[in-house]
Amino acid sequence: MVKTIEYIDGVVRMIDQTRLPNEKVFVDCKTVEDVGHAIKTMIIRGAPAIGVAAAMGISLAADAIDAPDFDTFYEELDTKCDTLGKSRPTAVNLAWAINRMKRVTQESNALSVSDIKVRLKQEALTICEEDILANEAMGNHGQTLIESGQTVLTHCNAGALATAGFGTALGVIRAAVNAGKDIRVLANETRPFLQGARLTAWELKEDNIPVKLITDNMCGFFMRKGEVDAVVVGADRIAGNGDVANKIGTYMVAVLAQKHNIPFYVAAPVSTLDLSLSSGDDIPIEERSAEEVVTFNSKRIAPEHIDVGHPAFDITPNELVHAIITERGIARAPFTDSLKQLAGQK
Amino acid sequence: MVKTIEYIDGVVRMIDQTRLPNEKVFVDCKTVEDVGHAIKTMIIRGAPAIGVAAAMGISLAADAIDAPDFDTFYEELDTKCDTLGKSRPTAVNLAWAINRMKRVTQESNALSVSDIKVRLKQEALTICEEDILANEAMGNHGQTLIESGQTVLTHCNAGALATAGFGTALGVIRAAVNAGKDIRVLANETRPFLQGARLTAWELKEDNIPVKLITDNMCGFFMRKGEVDAVVVGADRIAGNGDVANKIGTYMVAVLAQKHNIPFYVAAPVSTLDLSLSSGDDIPIEERSAEEVVTFNSKRIAPEHIDVGHPAFDITPNELVHAIITERGIARAPFTDSLKQLAGQK
Repeated sequence: MVKTIEYIDGVVRMIDQTRLPNEKVFVDCKTVEDVGHAIKTMIIRGAPAIGVAAAMGISLAADAIDAPDFDTFYEELDTKCDTLGKSRPTAVNLAWAINRMKRVTQESNALSVSDIKVRLKQEALTICEEDILANEAMGNHGQTLIESGQTVLTHCNAGALATAGFGTALGVIRAAVNAGKDIRVLANETRPFLQGARLTAWELKEDNIPVKLITDNMCGFFMRKGEVDAVVVGADRIAGNGDVANKIGTYMVAVLAQKHNIPFYVAAPVSTLDLSLSSGDDIPIEERSAEEVVTFNSKRIAPEHIDVGHPAFDITPNELVHAIITERGIARAPFTDSLKQLAGQK
Repeated sequence: MVKTIEYIDGVVRMIDQTRLPNEKVFVDCKTVEDVGHAIKTMIIRGAPAIGVAAAMGISLAADAIDAPDFDTFYEELDTKCDTLGKSRPTAVNLAWAINRMKRVTQESNALSVSDIKVRLKQEALTICEEDILANEAMGNHGQTLIESGQTVLTHCNAGALATAGFGTALGVIRAAVNAGKDIRVLANETRPFLQGARLTAWELKEDNIPVKLITDNMCGFFMRKGEVDAVVVGADRIAGNGDVANKIGTYMVAVLAQKHNIPFYVAAPVSTLDLSLSSGDDIPIEERSAEEVVTFNSKRIAPEHIDVGHPAFDITPNELVHAIITERGIARAPFTDSLKQLAGQK
């Protein structure tokens, strides 16, 4: 399995996820602006991976600052943090990682500027390592919900490519397989960006986990035929009441799962929780460009000058969510209590 | 508006729907085999249009038969009918049109072979004209269900391009607009063949009916926001109990409509009813090639050698259907009674 993201010698190296699975091309980010561009254009995507990239980006930003004292250094870094924080609005892991890097900077104000730079690099690497460990823990908790012989439907890519490694939703599936369970995956292709077709199908195939690719609009058909036993998806932000923002189409999957009495699970690290929001209605939904919907390989698939909707995420209300799987355990309704409890643990 | 299909001077001319909206190319079918190929490869698609094409194809087949007597003629024609009937399995209009052409042939057995050929040409043209009239009547009935100011969601293309003209689901929308109502359309792009993006968006734009294009997985998002007032779709076959076979994804739309208390209407001519089947479970679902899902403009969007599902249709059970709009009026539950009544009318 290729590494989603690495930080070596002042370079943040990412696999270009816009070009998978046809080409394995790596992009080297040498500045925080490069990282911001990579996040915006979805060279790297997936809430946890965005968080890791942001932390590394802030370390790059810190390294580039030539400041005589802490206050000047912090002021410049803060500006870079602000700009990077605006690269994508929905995934809270972006703000979470940036805030963590800022907090570490403030806590290091007694150190020299060059020592703070070393400290920030360490912190970015720690965030990256912690993400993999969190996914493995999440997988171990989550796989208890999946039985051998089951087919699990997933939407978008919440895999190794959406994280520093192992994956959230696909981490649960990998952990089930590692536990010796016989698991099949049904992968929604996930229009318009095709993360399911391009990334999830590729990841699972590389790991020899049986996967069948379908268009998003087929998932109801397969559920009605009794061919789906559970749904596991990732999340970009989870509000205090358990409402889940995730890739557009997740809500459709959740409604169909409810209709067919199929459990609907969300796998996400605690860094995806945003307990400052009491409901999913307060989560900002990114509207991306119409071009991503109506062009494919620079060829249009729709008439010119057509009105196009492109909300990149939707909200699945908590009543459709059977459980939220985190690295600290599994939260169930009422989520207002269970999520607060998990967030408070160390 | 271009004509979907025309029959002039021994040539069945169709607009190539695989190349819209980028190119307006016409395909001339000179033999019944050409017509079968056009149906199979979806140069022409949409249940009513397939019926019209089949009738014209049988007329071409008849013209090509050099037979001394009726029995020889009928035997050869019957073989051509059998082959054409196998070109696509789900839309019942194909069998309906072929059976009608066979019945007319049998009823004309007192005529000379050359007079039968003339009679069959007339019948094919009649089927084409009747289809447009049926769609207009369907539109007049159906538009009473739609109020001015409403947004109607549709899936696939059940428009002029799916019929000889005017359309079934889009006929209802056109009739509402013609009645002076202010109507907006939300069009699902309809993966994998993109009939919504390529055909519905194009047709409505040509007619200056406001349309917004979305990916299929967005329709739940817009329903939850309260931006959809009604759903109108076409049908490929309707069983005696009102179960509806239509383009893959229709079932997903119907479940989402139920969840949001949005009326779900099906518009289809009586020729789409198959009262010989007591339930939708008996409708054959065409499985099309994986290539149509994983390639786009000859470029793959998924890894090589991946397992792919491609049911081209799904069944929407009658309990999700608020009304079936036909040229003879509107059928409501219990459909077993109401559809039988409509089918029996002249």
